[in-house]
Amino acid sequence: MREYGCESTPGQAASERKTHLIALDWGTSSLRAYRLGEGGQVLETRELARGIMQLEGGGDEAFEHALEEACSDWLSDEPSDPLIACGMIGSAQGWREAPYIQSPVTIEQLSAVLTPIRTSRGHVLWVIPGVIQRGELPNLMRGEETQVFGLAAEQMAEQLAEQHDAPLLIGLPGSHSKWVTVEAGRIIGFHTFMTGEVYAALLAHTILGRTAIASDGFDVAAFDRGLSVAGSPEGRGGVLSTIFSSRSLVLTGDLAGQGQADYLSGLLIGHEVRALATLCQTTPEQRIVLIGNSSLCDRYLRALKHCGYRTTNLAPQATAAGLWQIAKQAALIDRRDL
Amino acid sequence: MREYGCESTPGQAASERKTHLIALDWGTSSLRAYRLGEGGQVLETRELARGIMQLEGGGDEAFEHALEEACSDWLSDEPSDPLIACGMIGSAQGWREAPYIQSPVTIEQLSAVLTPIRTSRGHVLWVIPGVIQRGELPNLMRGEETQVFGLAAEQMAEQLAEQHDAPLLIGLPGSHSKWVTVEAGRIIGFHTFMTGEVYAALLAHTILGRTAIASDGFDVAAFDRGLSVAGSPEGRGGVLSTIFSSRSLVLTGDLAGQGQADYLSGLLIGHEVRALATLCQTTPEQRIVLIGNSSLCDRYLRALKHCGYRTTNLAPQATAAGLWQIAKQAALIDRRDL
Repeated sequence: MREYGCESTPGQAASERKTHLIALDWGTSSLRAYRLGEGGQVLETRELARGIMQLEGGGDEAFEHALEEACSDWLSDEPSDPLIACGMIGSAQGWREAPYIQSPVTIEQLSAVLTPIRTSRGHVLWVIPGVIQRGELPNLMRGEETQVFGLAAEQMAEQLAEQHDAPLLIGLPGSHSKWVTVEAGRIIGFHTFMTGEVYAALLAHTILGRTAIASDGFDVAAFDRGLSVAGSPEGRGGVLSTIFSSRSLVLTGDLAGQGQADYLSGLLIGHEVRALATLCQTTPEQRIVLIGNSSLCDRYLRALKHCGYRTTNLAPQATAAGLWQIAKQAALIDRRDL
Repeated sequence: MREYGCESTPGQAASERKTHLIALDWGTSSLRAYRLGEGGQVLETRELARGIMQLEGGGDEAFEHALEEACSDWLSDEPSDPLIACGMIGSAQGWREAPYIQSPVTIEQLSAVLTPIRTSRGHVLWVIPGVIQRGELPNLMRGEETQVFGLAAEQMAEQLAEQHDAPLLIGLPGSHSKWVTVEAGRIIGFHTFMTGEVYAALLAHTILGRTAIASDGFDVAAFDRGLSVAGSPEGRGGVLSTIFSSRSLVLTGDLAGQGQADYLSGLLIGHEVRALATLCQTTPEQRIVLIGNSSLCDRYLRALKHCGYRTTNLAPQATAAGLWQIAKQAALIDRRDL
């Protein structure tokens, strides 16, 4: 799969090429800045530990200072330089709240309600809203919608070419995994699983961590065993019940302490992937794409195959692509020089 | 329900009455000592913060010192004073390992394999083994078996009187809840749920704690709402999915921050109690007894009723009673003066 915004133009160094968009992925723990050129190609990328939780004081000045740290040299003195951001920067704890937009939602609808922040240098930073799904159990995301729309543009093209009309399920594994259903380029629903954060809390702050022995390698057998247990009759007892086996198996000598963490990982991811059939009414034919470059995605791909899903793909991070697509849709780029 | 070992003998102060058994409930964080008189009546109870994790050094001397702190004045110079203990004191991290006995197990079988520790004063402390259930997912308990046998003696009498022949399900809510199935006085199987420990870790060490506001009261409506969600179609997505709603409901203003912890408690206990039908093949007619005096048991009773169980009862702590029954079975008491 082609990575969006990474096409190279031959014959000219990236550093010399003109900035068409400054795009920010500004989350809780980090600020990632992309300088995008013509057609959305990524000319430069920077990552700073300037997430919204890292900023002292947290007032306008702190955010503006972080923005300058990240890309003062990219910002020309021309205030029409387009700037866009997604992520927790638009949350109530961020720079300015960009109210949630309701799902189902298209990229056109999302791009129509960006929240502007004017900087003291006169630039305008356009903040992308998060998406809310109302109902008995409301669900929220901020940042993932941008990746989904980055990917969806390409998937749309593929879909039309291959005459697919079934919804696509997009998985974004992480500390809070999101599973987003997209149909004809529109987000129609999504679910959150706190798998990554629960995994870390269990190992660091419960008795399960006492028997786990740190290990560099990935114990595939232990991971697969966790997947199997999650799918077994005893797995139907749910996470609160099965996780204790990660300790009891070590105490009885049936599992090495070095394999406990991967076994637990397999258990939790296994429970999560098993739940998709119920929550998203998936069948083994469901087309699924995972977004991400991390080894975490490999674990999820493994779990999906274990559960019988036949059409699974891995796509690279699509944040820069999504920021570009949304900026284009919002006519931030057209205004200048497209 | 009558509390074992609490019958009072009129006309004589408890302190003057003869010691028939010194019984210890020696766990991870505390040491509870009971002085039991004739017929197992509790004459005195003490609780010290001398759990096995609190003892410096952890060698024989540390354990012996803690024992002396708890009850040196109860121990006569007569080395035939019977002493018995249950709990983590018999674990690999305890004073001496009392190897697990396999389930199914009767009180006769358990009482036949106590592990003796001779103290420097010449007394013998008899340590009750934990119970192990082997299989695909091994399960373990230490201490709960003693409560179960304490309760089972009384239940057995009731069972015979009422001609019940169906198994009894005994719930022991706590940091690690145990659900033990007893048939004709025999432990035939059990399950562990890490509900209490997971609840504490989620509130203290994940993002869920950020929106929760401490509150003294019990928010019954929030708790019941959690129970309902666990039993709803969305609840079938499991714990990893539903817990995020404890945050999203607060962010959307649908739940007060003061109610979040009780909502989460209802969710987790709801998931646990729902799983019993699958794991223990229970029907609404299943007779269930919860052991404990705590307000936690009230929550579980509420959850059981919510799930349609019709025959639920609450029994007080049965540890002293269990220690007495096991000591009697092991002929520790007969040897002296019964």
